[in-house]
Amino acid sequence: MAGLTQLAENDVFMAFASYATIILSKMMLMSTVTAMHRVTKKAFANPEDCASFGKGEAAKKHLRTDDRVERVRRAHLNDLENIVPFLGIGLLYSLSDPDLSTALLHFRLFVAARIYHTVAYLTPLPQPNRGLAFFVGYGVTFSMAYQLLKNRLYL
Amino acid sequence: MAGLTQLAENDVFMAFASYATIILSKMMLMSTVTAMHRVTKKAFANPEDCASFGKGEAAKKHLRTDDRVERVRRAHLNDLENIVPFLGIGLLYSLSDPDLSTALLHFRLFVAARIYHTVAYLTPLPQPNRGLAFFVGYGVTFSMAYQLLKNRLYL
Amino acid sequence: MAGLTQLAENDVFMAFASYATIILSKMMLMSTVTAMHRVTKKAFANPEDCASFGKGEAAKKHLRTDDRVERVRRAHLNDLENIVPFLGIGLLYSLSDPDLSTALLHFRLFVAARIYHTVAYLTPLPQPNRGLAFFVGYGVTFSMAYQLLKNRLYL
Repeated sequence: MAGLTQLAENDVFMAFASYATIILSKMMLMSTVTAMHRVTKKAFANPEDCASFGKGEAAKKHLRTDDRVERVRRAHLNDLENIVPFLGIGLLYSLSDPDLSTALLHFRLFVAARIYHTVAYLTPLPQPNRGLAFFVGYGVTFSMAYQLLKNRLYL
Repeated sequence: MAGLTQLAENDVFMAFASYATIILSKMMLMSTVTAMHRVTKKAFANPEDCASFGKGEAAKKHLRTDDRVERVRRAHLNDLENIVPFLGIGLLYSLSDPDLSTALLHFRLFVAARIYHTVAYLTPLPQPNRGLAFFVGYGVTFSMAYQLLKNRLYL
Repeated sequence: MAGLTQLAENDVFMAFASYATIILSKMMLMSTVTAMHRVTKKAFANPEDCASFGKGEAAKKHLRTDDRVERVRRAHLNDLENIVPFLGIGLLYSLSDPDLSTALLHFRLFVAARIYHTVAYLTPLPQPNRGLAFFVGYGVTFSMAYQLLKNRLYL
């Protein structure tokens, strides 16, 4: 298990593991927020989910979309679209032996930007709060991709 | 290639690789199920997909949503939202040298819960079948995240 | 850091890192394409995004879906659904010591197929252009999954 011990002694990799776990846990909380809004707004996507509200028409009226629920779902999808590239590119970047303080700056900026993005989306804060948060996370990921491809391109 | 040989000799990592491959393959099958329903229900999202049904109005009436298709798409999106955190957190957890039997329990529970979730969504089974399957997978991922952050936090 | 040096000397892993970074960067560009279409078509999903077009009814009419925007969003979601399995399965496949030329064939076919898929979706090209591109990428991922499970199954 020497290989694993070496990974565990690699500060960049351990930092990536911590930040990736934190931002993925945040993303998972979006499911709970969606579920909470669905229950309080009584707005469901599946007939079996509102069967407890009665049968026939009584239940059917809860099969609807709700602005609040759709907002959380858009924030969740935006998370997926941005956190997946961060995971893939960030993992490969972490294994490419970057400078520790540069790597920490990337990881911290990304995690802070995505948390702020969620706050800006769900509150909602006026633009350009959400837009700026999006572009910070986006830029951080592209910066890691650029460094990977510059140093280690193998096609 | 000693590093790779060591990974290949690591039972937790090999188990993670197997379970991750299985659940990702299951997720990919959702695309095929969606396509099958689109064809049998003749419900398409793009004009070019139903061009073979004729031109103008004849084709246009197939540009519609269908309950069955939308149900599969929701199940697929729910898979994405839950399997992405499992992949990221599970990979890092596997590399953090956990107890083999604990790790196997996590991986097996997750894969079984997600397969049951798909069955419950597509049948559909009455609630709380789908809800419970969701929360088992959700809990397993958070349990791995908790152990990662408890043992190895590096911020 | 011997473990990392070994990874960096592994040609299959370095090739996977390059191709994964390229296809993830392409996927991220879909966000920019969506944003560009939203601005030129003035079709937004959130009230705060079109606040600059005035208040009340003047802004509300921009809260709508647009065919062009929805097309890009479907292409983006299809990317997510297919690139996530490629990332997970491809990473594990790369670490399973495959033949270099076979691995390169898989990575190149996948990346070419997904780029062609995007071109076919956004142009749009008539079917079966997009369908074939989809199935090439799909087949490549299943081929890697099959080889992983055949050689290294650990349940």
